[in-house]
Amino acid sequence: MLKQVPHKIYLTEEQMPKQWYNLRADMKEKPEPMLNPATGKPAVKEDLYPVFCEKLAAQELDDTTRYFDIPEPVLDFYKIYRPSPLMRAYNLEKALDTPAKIYFKFEGNNTSGSHKLNSAVAQAYYAKEQGLTKVTTETGAGQWGTALSEACAYFGLDLTVFMVKCSYQQKPYRKNVMQTFGASVVPSPSNTTKAGRAILAENPETGGSLGCAISEAVETALHTENCRYVLGSVLNQVLLHQSIIGLESKQAMEMIDEYPDVIIGCAGGGSNLGGLIAPFMQDKLLGRANPRIVAVEPASCPSLTRGRYAYDFCDVGKVTPLAKMYTLGSGFMPSPDHAGGLRYHGMSPILSKLYHDGYMEAVSVRQTDVFDAAVQFAKLESILPAPESSHAIRTAIDEALKCKESGEAKTILFGLTGTGYFDMTAYDSYLKGTMKNVIPTDEQLEENFRKLPKVNG
Amino acid sequence: MLKQVPHKIYLTEEQMPKQWYNLRADMKEKPEPMLNPATGKPAVKEDLYPVFCEKLAAQELDDTTRYFDIPEPVLDFYKIYRPSPLMRAYNLEKALDTPAKIYFKFEGNNTSGSHKLNSAVAQAYYAKEQGLTKVTTETGAGQWGTALSEACAYFGLDLTVFMVKCSYQQKPYRKNVMQTFGASVVPSPSNTTKAGRAILAENPETGGSLGCAISEAVETALHTENCRYVLGSVLNQVLLHQSIIGLESKQAMEMIDEYPDVIIGCAGGGSNLGGLIAPFMQDKLLGRANPRIVAVEPASCPSLTRGRYAYDFCDVGKVTPLAKMYTLGSGFMPSPDHAGGLRYHGMSPILSKLYHDGYMEAVSVRQTDVFDAAVQFAKLESILPAPESSHAIRTAIDEALKCKESGEAKTILFGLTGTGYFDMTAYDSYLKGTMKNVIPTDEQLEENFRKLPKVNG
Repeated sequence: MLKQVPHKIYLTEEQMPKQWYNLRADMKEKPEPMLNPATGKPAVKEDLYPVFCEKLAAQELDDTTRYFDIPEPVLDFYKIYRPSPLMRAYNLEKALDTPAKIYFKFEGNNTSGSHKLNSAVAQAYYAKEQGLTKVTTETGAGQWGTALSEACAYFGLDLTVFMVKCSYQQKPYRKNVMQTFGASVVPSPSNTTKAGRAILAENPETGGSLGCAISEAVETALHTENCRYVLGSVLNQVLLHQSIIGLESKQAMEMIDEYPDVIIGCAGGGSNLGGLIAPFMQDKLLGRANPRIVAVEPASCPSLTRGRYAYDFCDVGKVTPLAKMYTLGSGFMPSPDHAGGLRYHGMSPILSKLYHDGYMEAVSVRQTDVFDAAVQFAKLESILPAPESSHAIRTAIDEALKCKESGEAKTILFGLTGTGYFDMTAYDSYLKGTMKNVIPTDEQLEENFRKLPKVNG
Repeated sequence: MLKQVPHKIYLTEEQMPKQWYNLRADMKEKPEPMLNPATGKPAVKEDLYPVFCEKLAAQELDDTTRYFDIPEPVLDFYKIYRPSPLMRAYNLEKALDTPAKIYFKFEGNNTSGSHKLNSAVAQAYYAKEQGLTKVTTETGAGQWGTALSEACAYFGLDLTVFMVKCSYQQKPYRKNVMQTFGASVVPSPSNTTKAGRAILAENPETGGSLGCAISEAVETALHTENCRYVLGSVLNQVLLHQSIIGLESKQAMEMIDEYPDVIIGCAGGGSNLGGLIAPFMQDKLLGRANPRIVAVEPASCPSLTRGRYAYDFCDVGKVTPLAKMYTLGSGFMPSPDHAGGLRYHGMSPILSKLYHDGYMEAVSVRQTDVFDAAVQFAKLESILPAPESSHAIRTAIDEALKCKESGEAKTILFGLTGTGYFDMTAYDSYLKGTMKNVIPTDEQLEENFRKLPKVNG
């Protein structure tokens, strides 16, 4: 009986979704609009054109079109590494002695090592289609930069990646992978931009931050011909592209007559979580089902659980439009002891709105507890998870253990966003017992909140 | 028409082979037997029992049983990461403008990053089944050590890995992965064994070699209770387990009405090549088909193309049985400029015999040509290949280019054994233009040949 569901469910290439799903179309209350920081007024497509290519700007602002066709060349690329498997964690279930059924959607079986490729391919394609020759971006842990390098190599676009300096130094191999795919990788803050120079002038020894790298990438795009900026998370367009994760998951679960009671995803900027939950949240919004949806974030970067729901800049240099989101303040930086990604100061405006309106829950987990879960999972399921993904594993295990107590045979679905091959320094410190849990104090957070833009009143 | 074959063909878990295929059963002339070095006589099962667990010793010596059932627990583990996809390199074909159809069997989508897991799971299972509590092994590039760490964590066995010292130092992350799965990793040569101490006494600064690490692992197994030694390549048992690669490939090709004209695999000890070609070689041996079979080895470690077909030790310390194989001499070490694996001095006795008898071809390729192919492939197919696998890519590209000249629409199948995430130092030196091609001179080889065991007469 136990073994009647296979370990992995793959859709065929024909069964793969041909459209992305735009969650906003089904939200009765829409996320608050982006604001043009110069005027304080809602941004229109034309405000975004200098930064984003046109089709992406349109996707960014469109909160009524329910489905977008996935362009044929994007589908062709997807077929190199998709559909990704929906897997059943039989060994974990057994080890936990839980009546819960634990499924996970595994997005790590591609060279970028994560789900990030889903949006990178789309964004590179639209840039190419518009006749651009170059794009810029930033990367922290390096998964997004790798994904975009792959996509740009495939579509023949030049790419400059501003890589957060501490990550650039700690993860030379990540840099090498991007270079192998032909990208230029610049440690951020750098002397190549005004934003970078300003930050360096203030703090020459800084290890950089995502917010700062974003400023540099946007500035470079604005000053380079035939060039635009692309971003791997937070944005509505990214959640749209990532909806393929959830669409495939739901379809695969239907094939085995399952529907999740709880859906769990790690949340940094929200790209994975937003994609994973999309069709399930649709069911919830339309009253067709009522699964619990749980965002898991690091205790060291707790935007949903301890942030403010307010308008904020998406970057440190304050060159981007203002977005209403849960934020720790655009100047917030997690402790250097924080490993891996999930270090962005804000959260996807879509997810922020849904959370604010009570459609989902959020928990924060401590780093060492996350790595406890990661190592347990690795040994049982023979997949070395990324630190980011392991936040979801932690909470999935916790939920399964609750089921053990209550005797409920719940169906749990979590997102295993990627693999941890480039995060061995963090694993090493965990194994050696030197890993720390550094959690921001209320005072630190308050100080950042005081710097939130005036537009919040 | 072009797009009628999907990019990837996955068998279902039900379609997965339930038996391994033992190529020796169909060889009219069998590989020469292993010799007990003490007596000079063919080794019998009992000679191997101190080193290998009993079922594996039986598999090692069995050249008549055609199929072995894959034990249920091994199948269960396989289902975590298998079946692996058979993929069509559409973009590579297009870029080469070749009429050839290029397929590859991709074994890299698992945490070990290579096909090595296929035999690791089997060997760990049989050790556990026999009531052993511990195994030892060696690892060079680290793929085998990682694979075995995963398998031992899964089956609950202790593991000590002797890791070639230069690799231990150059690839700390590989070590960390093994440790994450609970393995003890010892740089080799070490002071923990007689063999290691002897080598260190002679050359304290040595970076180690696979042959030396094998000696240490075997010695440790012999002197530890409830412990045996396991090896990731060369052995007949390993080729047996790896036959799943070829069996799946053949089955997937049948599903799309294809049969390869040329089958190409990289060859170090022969585990991947032997597995990939198994059922196709069967066709050849039984006169059912006549595909070309091409072994690709590094010019810096050219056992088939420049070695002697002779009895030799499998290790430097000369503690193992003698095997008749193509060998560069057990003291041979490739130049430190040689990156990645494929650095073993010998070659699987089965493959050696088949090559000797004219059933397959062999070519050697230069390192920089291999990386040319690796980077071209990465950009087109969005998979970062291992240096080892890239040897096969090189030759597949060369064959496809020949097809372009001749206008023949041949069907090419090559083995993409793994991913290169832990090999970025080598990619970096390639990208920087500092990678060298160091090829042994005839004199160097002759010097090693003179030291071949006396039993060769």
